[in-house]
Amino acid sequence: MAVTPTPADKFSFGLWTIGWVGQDQFGAPSREPLDVVEAVTKLAELGAYGLTFHDNDLFPFEATDAERTAQIDRLKVVLADTGVVVPMITTNLFSHPVFKDGGFTSNDRAVRRFALRKVIRNLDLAAEVGAQTFVMWGGREGGEYDHAKDVRSALARYREAVNLLADYVTDQGYDLKFAIEPKPNEPRGDILLPTVGHALAFIETLDRSELFGVNPEVGHEQMAGLNFTHAIAQALDAGKLFHIDLNGQRSIKYDQDLVFGHGDLQNAFSLVDLLENGGPDGGPAYDGPRHFDYKPSRTEDYAGVWESARANMVTYLLLKERAKAFRADPEVQQALADAKVAELAQPTLNEGESYQDLVADRSSYEDFDAAGYHNARGFGFVRLQQLALEHLLGAR
Amino acid sequence: MAVTPTPADKFSFGLWTIGWVGQDQFGAPSREPLDVVEAVTKLAELGAYGLTFHDNDLFPFEATDAERTAQIDRLKVVLADTGVVVPMITTNLFSHPVFKDGGFTSNDRAVRRFALRKVIRNLDLAAEVGAQTFVMWGGREGGEYDHAKDVRSALARYREAVNLLADYVTDQGYDLKFAIEPKPNEPRGDILLPTVGHALAFIETLDRSELFGVNPEVGHEQMAGLNFTHAIAQALDAGKLFHIDLNGQRSIKYDQDLVFGHGDLQNAFSLVDLLENGGPDGGPAYDGPRHFDYKPSRTEDYAGVWESARANMVTYLLLKERAKAFRADPEVQQALADAKVAELAQPTLNEGESYQDLVADRSSYEDFDAAGYHNARGFGFVRLQQLALEHLLGAR
Amino acid sequence: MAVTPTPADKFSFGLWTIGWVGQDQFGAPSREPLDVVEAVTKLAELGAYGLTFHDNDLFPFEATDAERTAQIDRLKVVLADTGVVVPMITTNLFSHPVFKDGGFTSNDRAVRRFALRKVIRNLDLAAEVGAQTFVMWGGREGGEYDHAKDVRSALARYREAVNLLADYVTDQGYDLKFAIEPKPNEPRGDILLPTVGHALAFIETLDRSELFGVNPEVGHEQMAGLNFTHAIAQALDAGKLFHIDLNGQRSIKYDQDLVFGHGDLQNAFSLVDLLENGGPDGGPAYDGPRHFDYKPSRTEDYAGVWESARANMVTYLLLKERAKAFRADPEVQQALADAKVAELAQPTLNEGESYQDLVADRSSYEDFDAAGYHNARGFGFVRLQQLALEHLLGAR
Amino acid sequence: MAVTPTPADKFSFGLWTIGWVGQDQFGAPSREPLDVVEAVTKLAELGAYGLTFHDNDLFPFEATDAERTAQIDRLKVVLADTGVVVPMITTNLFSHPVFKDGGFTSNDRAVRRFALRKVIRNLDLAAEVGAQTFVMWGGREGGEYDHAKDVRSALARYREAVNLLADYVTDQGYDLKFAIEPKPNEPRGDILLPTVGHALAFIETLDRSELFGVNPEVGHEQMAGLNFTHAIAQALDAGKLFHIDLNGQRSIKYDQDLVFGHGDLQNAFSLVDLLENGGPDGGPAYDGPRHFDYKPSRTEDYAGVWESARANMVTYLLLKERAKAFRADPEVQQALADAKVAELAQPTLNEGESYQDLVADRSSYEDFDAAGYHNARGFGFVRLQQLALEHLLGAR
Repeated sequence: MAVTPTPADKFSFGLWTIGWVGQDQFGAPSREPLDVVEAVTKLAELGAYGLTFHDNDLFPFEATDAERTAQIDRLKVVLADTGVVVPMITTNLFSHPVFKDGGFTSNDRAVRRFALRKVIRNLDLAAEVGAQTFVMWGGREGGEYDHAKDVRSALARYREAVNLLADYVTDQGYDLKFAIEPKPNEPRGDILLPTVGHALAFIETLDRSELFGVNPEVGHEQMAGLNFTHAIAQALDAGKLFHIDLNGQRSIKYDQDLVFGHGDLQNAFSLVDLLENGGPDGGPAYDGPRHFDYKPSRTEDYAGVWESARANMVTYLLLKERAKAFRADPEVQQALADAKVAELAQPTLNEGESYQDLVADRSSYEDFDAAGYHNARGFGFVRLQQLALEHLLGAR
Repeated sequence: MAVTPTPADKFSFGLWTIGWVGQDQFGAPSREPLDVVEAVTKLAELGAYGLTFHDNDLFPFEATDAERTAQIDRLKVVLADTGVVVPMITTNLFSHPVFKDGGFTSNDRAVRRFALRKVIRNLDLAAEVGAQTFVMWGGREGGEYDHAKDVRSALARYREAVNLLADYVTDQGYDLKFAIEPKPNEPRGDILLPTVGHALAFIETLDRSELFGVNPEVGHEQMAGLNFTHAIAQALDAGKLFHIDLNGQRSIKYDQDLVFGHGDLQNAFSLVDLLENGGPDGGPAYDGPRHFDYKPSRTEDYAGVWESARANMVTYLLLKERAKAFRADPEVQQALADAKVAELAQPTLNEGESYQDLVADRSSYEDFDAAGYHNARGFGFVRLQQLALEHLLGAR
Repeated sequence: MAVTPTPADKFSFGLWTIGWVGQDQFGAPSREPLDVVEAVTKLAELGAYGLTFHDNDLFPFEATDAERTAQIDRLKVVLADTGVVVPMITTNLFSHPVFKDGGFTSNDRAVRRFALRKVIRNLDLAAEVGAQTFVMWGGREGGEYDHAKDVRSALARYREAVNLLADYVTDQGYDLKFAIEPKPNEPRGDILLPTVGHALAFIETLDRSELFGVNPEVGHEQMAGLNFTHAIAQALDAGKLFHIDLNGQRSIKYDQDLVFGHGDLQNAFSLVDLLENGGPDGGPAYDGPRHFDYKPSRTEDYAGVWESARANMVTYLLLKERAKAFRADPEVQQALADAKVAELAQPTLNEGESYQDLVADRSSYEDFDAAGYHNARGFGFVRLQQLALEHLLGAR
Repeated sequence: MAVTPTPADKFSFGLWTIGWVGQDQFGAPSREPLDVVEAVTKLAELGAYGLTFHDNDLFPFEATDAERTAQIDRLKVVLADTGVVVPMITTNLFSHPVFKDGGFTSNDRAVRRFALRKVIRNLDLAAEVGAQTFVMWGGREGGEYDHAKDVRSALARYREAVNLLADYVTDQGYDLKFAIEPKPNEPRGDILLPTVGHALAFIETLDRSELFGVNPEVGHEQMAGLNFTHAIAQALDAGKLFHIDLNGQRSIKYDQDLVFGHGDLQNAFSLVDLLENGGPDGGPAYDGPRHFDYKPSRTEDYAGVWESARANMVTYLLLKERAKAFRADPEVQQALADAKVAELAQPTLNEGESYQDLVADRSSYEDFDAAGYHNARGFGFVRLQQLALEHLLGAR
């Protein structure tokens, strides 16, 4: 195989991903904890460029200040040694029982205050380790029972919280933006801001909305049966794709966190095509980290963990190759033209045309041959899809 | 049964609902078409206050101007005779083959221009019949194949289209607002603006966003596994609940359009509670039409159609009664207090408190007893849910 | 509220249900472990009649023989003291890392042998505590990756295992039957025997199929979008409803294990109606334990745990009351007749009629008025459903 | 591209597939009807070997005997001219309003008798055109409302019906087997025999069960979130894979009927691997028709229809090539061995070993090192999956 990951590819991994010990809803851990120094060293060897983490991936919830500092220092040393960077960090507001009804939106006000403090402290750490993105996944913000959570109040508290954090970051002069990560459910029955759309809408209600974007995760959108590539396109349309979580999911079920590409492969293909070739002049549409938020299956030992880490990167690079070849194929270009894909980029109105002009244009309505679309004027979408599939299969 | 629908309840029905002839993906019609005059007459008898329709529910796509006018006139007469009103109308951009790739976002520019003209003409009709809300369900705006639709261009064209329509309405001085109706899929594999969240986010990108809100439909959100009451709460939070489509859906599958309450009954209960009791001082949170967008099952004849129409209204009124009793029950009030439901309405910061003050408040963090939430400080959510269930069952 | 659970209602609970400490995929425990003596004592107080358990609910995987015996003895004492019985036990083949690829169908043969031994030992315990049903939930029997599991071999090994266990039980003279519990996914990406149908089919391939039935769980079928009442009906049709797991699930997502009735309430209603009134002469169709396999939400402390336990039983009894009233209502009886519900129990052929007779009966085909079903001969299903809903709401 | 379909590949198509006119739940036809002579001629040109049909694909429900015969004769001529065969036919018991509550299980007994007669007549046609398989998809056998359908009676009537049909076929000496096609929902809210498992279980209750197998459809199982390859494996295990319907589906939603491979591509890959390489000595596990039951998208004209037909076959052949290369790769063979995939084919007990022997084998339990599976003995499943993926991508 020709593809080899390098730091230029900007692949990053959560410490909680390669470090997941395999404890799940029905089972005890199947692996020993992974030390952060080993994690970074190994990621560097594999060609990754970045490590990300929750505060409590690096040090436990109950850590003393000294323990916390010791771990941060150990991390800094290995980062310096390896050249690995920390492009993003995030806060654990979901594991400890204190967050059993959420952090920013717990019905218990004291918990909300505690959550804010925990995050503020972690913002300082983000700045300290040079992260540019601060992800917020509100996994416990939600509920199981409709009458137990006043969702409008919850959104108001969510807003209060993140407005305050944006003020803090601004006042401190931190070069840090926030990326909200949506998820429809699990561990709560219904999580607030369940999809990319809901998060984008919420962001528009914030005081400093320019500091907020989204961190969409492949599997989270697919858990709602939604098209992930569509979600990314809407986030790009809004200028809000601040970070991305790549992984794999097979249909609507629990959050699988499989290796990227080990889920809906065709959607992964169109996603990479959009990210890599969807920008101006066919360049990348997104230049941030390609971040893998996956879980090495519980069946694996650490040899398998590192194989799985590598698999994410290799699959991404293979799909990138396939997408380049797809775009370069003259037959594909003809099929795209036949399907009028680029025609959609052309405004519906002529330059300078007003709606009055449109109404006056008899060819647009009175003389338009709508009936001519019956049994004719096919779009050739299936043929285009088949060309995409054959490129994906490396069969062209 | 005590409940009897009256026009004061503001129940409205789509002409396409009671008039659905039972033609589905696998079957021919099982009923004869319903004439609009009979429809309105019958709805009036049943206690409904409003009729809604797509242009082509009232007159066919191919209607001449004379045929169109004749039908509109017939409608006006029966409205006048019965007192039934038309609070909302909408445009059919999905049935005719010309819209096979959508209306506003068809890859074919000529189709997009035709769609705009068709809608403009229908805006005039909306004004003519006194509708205040203009619903836009973009059922064919989407695709099945990721490479066949440039979603960012599609969103740009969608925006271009609705911006133009808002200009038109403004210039004409029409007292008309737009309500976008999201749906995740069917008839397209993936529909653009698939959920309430995506529609709310899109609205914020429009030139005259104040003219645009959402028309959420129970079943459409539930087809994505999302909590409908949560969606309505976020729409209310954004001030964007312009209209609502009530019906029933049983789990994630094809669009069932069952009678309201014949799907997820507990979510229907919390929805009615929110709509009727979620406003200031416990009054209604929404004062628009309670619109039923359902389909009488294909197994029914017209006797069954009218029974089903009535069932929607009766169920709504029963749930409204149950919700009032739930709110009035002292034991419920205690359980709500125990669950700290109202505490979430209290800001997390004290009045005038800055984040500096919060950081200085040792009780919020350094001295906070997080461990005290283990094995203690339960929220009593299950008990509250059980009280809600028992009220729903009329068992208290 | 009038309803009070008593042992005559045959309500049973898993020790792992009320004893669930709240540890989930994203969170640490929120409750202390529950001792079995307290569990039984409390269940007795609440009116339950039975306790069920996995071996490792009662004693840990690593327990010595002495520790194991001590716990069993403690259980026996409290059973004797309270009158609580153990109608069912089951084996944990899913928590320990040794079972990471399953028990009976692990690719690792040594694990399969170990699993068999663990189950055999537990069969002895089942006999010792007087259980009549031995549940087998193969939660780890499955896979995430299609090429890693030869499903035909897996089914062969599953069969080998349970055939051996049936021989063992028979030879020992134990009065014990097996109930296979299907689940579509979680913790594995795809679990073998994913639905009631698959389990029923598998049972027909067993040597002593008469010893095997199913233990359907509400949420497990609903995680596949299937109708639980239909599943129970097919199990009854096959004479294979050996046990039942009652709980609540809201749509297709992770396994929620909510309180019975806190999910799809209308399906719960039809289920109770079938169980209680679906037998000969309108009596019960099932006389085994009404077993609750649910999880008290992680937000609750032990006060909430016991409230939730009680809620399961109360809801069941309320639905039983509603179902009796539904059946007794003359208007319902008329609606059932109109909908020809009982006509389906009548054979399609006349008594003694052959297919030759049918072919000769011109009224059945040549003279049959198929067209008369258009716009007529409605079934009145929606009205019947509305009557059911109104009974459920206690509104009639 | 090297792959070219030939009759030896045994590809067959439903007349209703290539002939689907694009009428869906929300739209009028977008294509003219396809004449059967053109259909067969075109399929022959494309390399298909078989045509299948419902009675009313070939002639309308209301056809006179003369019209029916004329169409059958036209079909026979074109079959003779082209060499195309009819390996399977089936009956339409779902389009006409008479079947609005089903055919074999309609609550209306007269309908049930009519349905039997319609099927018997179609059995004669099956024999006449030389079909060996008779598919039964009971798309209208089911319901939307739990109280309106007595499922046990429905199963009894279903059984009565198919037992009678099996007697008929036997008495007539027809060389014809039945294949039941499961589907979870759509057009009914819940369809009876919703999955392959339920159908297999039902078959075991039939008088002449040897005449009955299943006709699984990719999308139908995936509409329930189930793994299609697993379903096929269980059908093979039971000796019941009598026919197969290949198509594509993207997640849990309405029935998409996309081109084979245009849905879950990795599952399609493992499916083809099982069908082609899963038999004795690595040969085919199934030798019947590879039947495509898909719908050419409504966006297409007839040029697109034929492109889509070809796409099904090309994709199948490409996946077959990839699967052969996967099996032949020594690195894959090593990975399969490391993952102990073949070890699962080895019985868990030694030859001649009894359970007494197993219990006496201390190495199987008392001395077994269960703890050794923690942090060790990984299965290498992710690496194997990545190898499969890279073969699928043609990257090895």
